[in-house]
Amino acid sequence: MKIIVDVMSGDNAPLEPIKGAVMAARSYSVEIVMVGDEKVIVETCNSNDITLPSNISIAHSEGVVTMEDEPLSVVREKSASSMGTALKMLAEGKGDALVSAGNTGALHAGSTLLVRRIKGIKRSAISTILPFETPTMLIDSGANTEVTKEQLEQFALMGSIYMKKLFNIERPRVGLANIGTEPTKGTKSLVEAYQYLSNSQLINFIGNVEGKQLPFGVCDVIVCDGFTGNTILKVSEGIAMYIMKRIKGVMMSNPLTKISALTMKKQLYSLKESFSASEYGGAPMLGISKPVIKAHGSSDAEEIKNSVRQAIAFLNTNLIVDISNSISSSVNESGAEK
Amino acid sequence: MKIIVDVMSGDNAPLEPIKGAVMAARSYSVEIVMVGDEKVIVETCNSNDITLPSNISIAHSEGVVTMEDEPLSVVREKSASSMGTALKMLAEGKGDALVSAGNTGALHAGSTLLVRRIKGIKRSAISTILPFETPTMLIDSGANTEVTKEQLEQFALMGSIYMKKLFNIERPRVGLANIGTEPTKGTKSLVEAYQYLSNSQLINFIGNVEGKQLPFGVCDVIVCDGFTGNTILKVSEGIAMYIMKRIKGVMMSNPLTKISALTMKKQLYSLKESFSASEYGGAPMLGISKPVIKAHGSSDAEEIKNSVRQAIAFLNTNLIVDISNSISSSVNESGAEK
Repeated sequence: MKIIVDVMSGDNAPLEPIKGAVMAARSYSVEIVMVGDEKVIVETCNSNDITLPSNISIAHSEGVVTMEDEPLSVVREKSASSMGTALKMLAEGKGDALVSAGNTGALHAGSTLLVRRIKGIKRSAISTILPFETPTMLIDSGANTEVTKEQLEQFALMGSIYMKKLFNIERPRVGLANIGTEPTKGTKSLVEAYQYLSNSQLINFIGNVEGKQLPFGVCDVIVCDGFTGNTILKVSEGIAMYIMKRIKGVMMSNPLTKISALTMKKQLYSLKESFSASEYGGAPMLGISKPVIKAHGSSDAEEIKNSVRQAIAFLNTNLIVDISNSISSSVNESGAEK
Repeated sequence: MKIIVDVMSGDNAPLEPIKGAVMAARSYSVEIVMVGDEKVIVETCNSNDITLPSNISIAHSEGVVTMEDEPLSVVREKSASSMGTALKMLAEGKGDALVSAGNTGALHAGSTLLVRRIKGIKRSAISTILPFETPTMLIDSGANTEVTKEQLEQFALMGSIYMKKLFNIERPRVGLANIGTEPTKGTKSLVEAYQYLSNSQLINFIGNVEGKQLPFGVCDVIVCDGFTGNTILKVSEGIAMYIMKRIKGVMMSNPLTKISALTMKKQLYSLKESFSASEYGGAPMLGISKPVIKAHGSSDAEEIKNSVRQAIAFLNTNLIVDISNSISSSVNESGAEK
């Protein structure tokens, strides 16, 4: 098993991705290929006293896709970049899975165009595991701003298979993100989607879920278009940051509260950490024919290592074969591709 | 000046709305009309030792629009209800403004159909003042799931006038809720709306704002369709509740943290209170030709009183005249109704 790590992308590249790749090579019995500027990687290793274990290698690339670059740059002017090279290697079978902390849009576009989707999957989606009362998958969390009900069903199916395989949830409960629980709530297309998902034999649909309920473990998979998903993701992040800031304000308000705060400092820190999107590793691009894991942009070495572990679990559980089988059997059942 | 209060609607009706109406009658030199079942109101007053001041009166109604009722019920089978009666009284000039803690959809539908919109306003919107770093208006927060760019401009204009008049903000900054700050982000209709709002002479448009930024005072008015607005509102509420629950867990985790928590109990309680949507009173239905204030469903007497105060400020600042003038001048400028 060989995992490709794009070590030039992300806020803390190249040092943290390199350290994470090395940690992963030491921890797991897999091969690791670091993709990036060879000179930079070697220099970074030398100046940080990092010695490379024998199961890690370097594949040279030129340039980096930045957060400001257009998604399609990864297959156009920046095709020789670390992300572009890593994606090509994955597509050509020079590795089994890919981890990158780079530009989400570019990673999604490049995965779709170079690595390609699973046969029968109409759209691939970015999925995020939210660190709520119970781990909750949000799919699509940003790739497709507008989707059809058939695509929502495929997202829900892929998310369910992921949650079953990686979180051991027997029949993951799928909720449709909406502004009310009644079947008549939301836009016209959501009302139609509700009916369509209700009749689906492929998923365990429990109905609409609204924002107030989301953090409290009411479902295992939240399905929505990428615009709604990204709104949920970013509003959650913003509100969490804001409340933690206000709580800090309360704790620093006078000498007595400052002393009191010390007694719970460690727990509050780990609470804050647990709200970070990387609690459960990176965001898998579901629907792509090989595992692609988007690590958080601000990933440190530990998070890169965790994303490699997630990629290994993804491969070990045969997720893609399962998704592929479910899609082709759903096509057979209906007599035609849905 | 006469304020109509629907005392039968809301989770704590009739007692809390009655108490709130009485508090308002005592605090402000206005007339108050309580709309509800006369027998119930009198009995509730008697059994709670409430004596009615001379500037408060009762208008009899029959039945209540519940949270489960369809929005249009208020003009159909429940037109004699407290909300239906109150809306008809407002429409007929038997009062100058209306406060209700009832079903939001019904109050919006009833306001539109009975009280009617300001001339030139295409859609009225529910607006909510979010208790963020600086008070931030979210418009539309739930009335219209799908909107045009012209309607978004009107929402932004009405929100700006409200924030200028009631919060003394000279040129309220308007942000478009989106999933990224770049002009090309979001759905096709949002990309068009961005261009349209950028060219607007009526508002101070500052561009797209995303969820992560929302709580930090980056703009004074967030404009969006009612689906996105309601999602933002409910996700914010859910995340806030969830984090406060987790913080409580940290504080109750051992005897030492329990004692420490006592030193900041009061501040944490007021922090929690400040996250409640009613921090700045109720949600005004902007675009309706007379002030209609939707108080929070769980309003207590204090919140009903605050909503009456808000209705008085709404009337005193001539908001509706200002909105009306701005709309008619915008129609004149463009040579035709936009």
